[in-house]
Amino acid sequence: MKAVYFDSAATTKMRDEVIDVMTNVMRNEYGNASSTHSFGRSSKVLIEQARKTIAKKLHVSAGEIVFTSGGTEADNLVLQCAIRDLGVKHIITSKIEHHAVLHTVQQLERTCDITVSYVKLDAHGQVDYENLETLLQSHGKTLVSLMHVNNEIGNILDVKRVGNLCQAHNALFHSDAVQSVGHYELNLQDVHIDFLAVSAHKFHGPKGVGFAYIRKNSGLRSLIFGGEQERGIRAGTEAVHNIVGLEKAFTMAYANLNEDREYVLDLKRHFISELRQAFPKVTFNGLSGDLEKSTYTLINVCLPIPPEKALILLFQMDLKGIACSKGSACQSGSNKGSHVLNEVLCEDDLKKPSLRFSFSIFNTKAEIDYVISVLKDFITA
Amino acid sequence: MKAVYFDSAATTKMRDEVIDVMTNVMRNEYGNASSTHSFGRSSKVLIEQARKTIAKKLHVSAGEIVFTSGGTEADNLVLQCAIRDLGVKHIITSKIEHHAVLHTVQQLERTCDITVSYVKLDAHGQVDYENLETLLQSHGKTLVSLMHVNNEIGNILDVKRVGNLCQAHNALFHSDAVQSVGHYELNLQDVHIDFLAVSAHKFHGPKGVGFAYIRKNSGLRSLIFGGEQERGIRAGTEAVHNIVGLEKAFTMAYANLNEDREYVLDLKRHFISELRQAFPKVTFNGLSGDLEKSTYTLINVCLPIPPEKALILLFQMDLKGIACSKGSACQSGSNKGSHVLNEVLCEDDLKKPSLRFSFSIFNTKAEIDYVISVLKDFITA
Repeated sequence: MKAVYFDSAATTKMRDEVIDVMTNVMRNEYGNASSTHSFGRSSKVLIEQARKTIAKKLHVSAGEIVFTSGGTEADNLVLQCAIRDLGVKHIITSKIEHHAVLHTVQQLERTCDITVSYVKLDAHGQVDYENLETLLQSHGKTLVSLMHVNNEIGNILDVKRVGNLCQAHNALFHSDAVQSVGHYELNLQDVHIDFLAVSAHKFHGPKGVGFAYIRKNSGLRSLIFGGEQERGIRAGTEAVHNIVGLEKAFTMAYANLNEDREYVLDLKRHFISELRQAFPKVTFNGLSGDLEKSTYTLINVCLPIPPEKALILLFQMDLKGIACSKGSACQSGSNKGSHVLNEVLCEDDLKKPSLRFSFSIFNTKAEIDYVISVLKDFITA
Repeated sequence: MKAVYFDSAATTKMRDEVIDVMTNVMRNEYGNASSTHSFGRSSKVLIEQARKTIAKKLHVSAGEIVFTSGGTEADNLVLQCAIRDLGVKHIITSKIEHHAVLHTVQQLERTCDITVSYVKLDAHGQVDYENLETLLQSHGKTLVSLMHVNNEIGNILDVKRVGNLCQAHNALFHSDAVQSVGHYELNLQDVHIDFLAVSAHKFHGPKGVGFAYIRKNSGLRSLIFGGEQERGIRAGTEAVHNIVGLEKAFTMAYANLNEDREYVLDLKRHFISELRQAFPKVTFNGLSGDLEKSTYTLINVCLPIPPEKALILLFQMDLKGIACSKGSACQSGSNKGSHVLNEVLCEDDLKKPSLRFSFSIFNTKAEIDYVISVLKDFITA
């Protein structure tokens, strides 16, 4: 059966070069990076080199990069420890954050003495920056947690603007950058961000590894206690193969960023145009139909399909070998539907089925044409 | 240069077969296990198969195995959540636990309303079971956290006895089994343990993955919040390649456990005998010189070396290509020395240098003979 993968926002196909360096590390570099002998030092060098590579690209110092088991842990590290260690009493976030942020904030609200405010969003899910500024005038130490690129509808946050607002109001700024790092340049000397969460498997790296950027002297301590790894901020023997794989994927993502982006953007352009031609009533959720204001890596499509057919749409796509999703993978097993679309769509649109197609350099226009033909057959059948 | 690896208690050389299955997963199984399409289901099947393999061997149900980023995270998950979710008010542990337990307990003592008791140890670091029983008579919900096999001195805890004591006193029992699972059979129908922490890289599996055994209906919730992975107990996209690598290493560890143990035990026997012959005044820390009461995987040797030479011993070993350690890798970068040896040794012995040599099936007697010859040259030089 034909297999077409359009779910790169859930996770990406790994690059062969990444697999190769990881396999090499697993075979030859098995020392524990905390060991002082030659085997250990050799692993340590690999980890510190990876840290430097990442730090240099983001224009920060190596000591500000903390490797974690992924984006979710990085979000938890920042949010949980900001409350515990930094005296944060007020979190401003939005209702369309990833669950790694949303569920963590809700847990903190239940168990800690904090207030949570949700910033207003417009009909496309875009943050209302004026409302954000109003919320920032509240008293008490505030942490803003807003994602850079939304994983379901692709909206891009103006991180520079939010960073400036936070700085002006003496608030901390955390951004889940899981969908942006590896896809967008981010110069942290230019953009005022205190904390980032990043995941390798969103840019053709391995699962189970990511990092947090934690601004120097932030005062953040550990979520996971134990050994002195990661300068005491994250205990546990470092997964050297995964960290080296993260570094390789990161380096390759930025090595050809412009060409890769043009290629993928061209896929998106083609997808939108073909969808509009085939289904004139199609709409795009959030800002995902806007080539400027949303990430080039995904579209979230609301299809003009009668309710009786909508139920089996995703099933039918799967039968035809097409991998796409209703929303984020982390909740796709549930029947609750996407919390993002529930927040952003009007009632009429919520009745229609929405699909997220997310792309990478490994996709082709022929695959898009195949999806269009399957959708056409399904809708007209 | 000759390179001899005697630090398998810090981390092990990966098996080629483990690397092969992981490479295959990275190349061909890149779906997000939370995705409902075929790519996702395929990853999900691999993870659930791994869960079943482990559960079956430990005689528990699959739902009681929760994959984590390693042993340290598993310890933190159990300890932090037991305080938050289970109303635990009293932790009984020992001063020679791994820092993943000790530092987490100390953090909980600082920030939560709990009491911590340290069970008495005898001169060999063995738990005083009668003292444990006395401590268990205290009031308030109690959690006992005692490791199965000590990572520095190799002492084996009588987990069956501790489990029975805990059950009799209605206390919960957590055991850091990082040095025992993969090396010892553990039947959780026979031994009453509520929580375990396990790490793959201690038995020739990958770093960055492990699991917690969490007894059914324990009431334990999540340390890391986000998606619904791992039945809601551990959020974050599962590292499929690492989990499959863990399963393969686990399966292989138990496939030839008896022969492998005999082989490694024979190395230990040889090591002890050669050391005694070469240095009649040598002593073994903890119970590590006792073939019955300590793990077959390590010795911790106190060497009769004058103080002026002791300082450069580890350096000299490293120069000769021998990887061994002063204690656990996680603290080997520090100058504080081993908290375990500080607890267990008398003052005179603390002045002499101690080295931990830990073995695996990949070691040979010839390597041991080489170590002995290097030590002889060093001491008599």
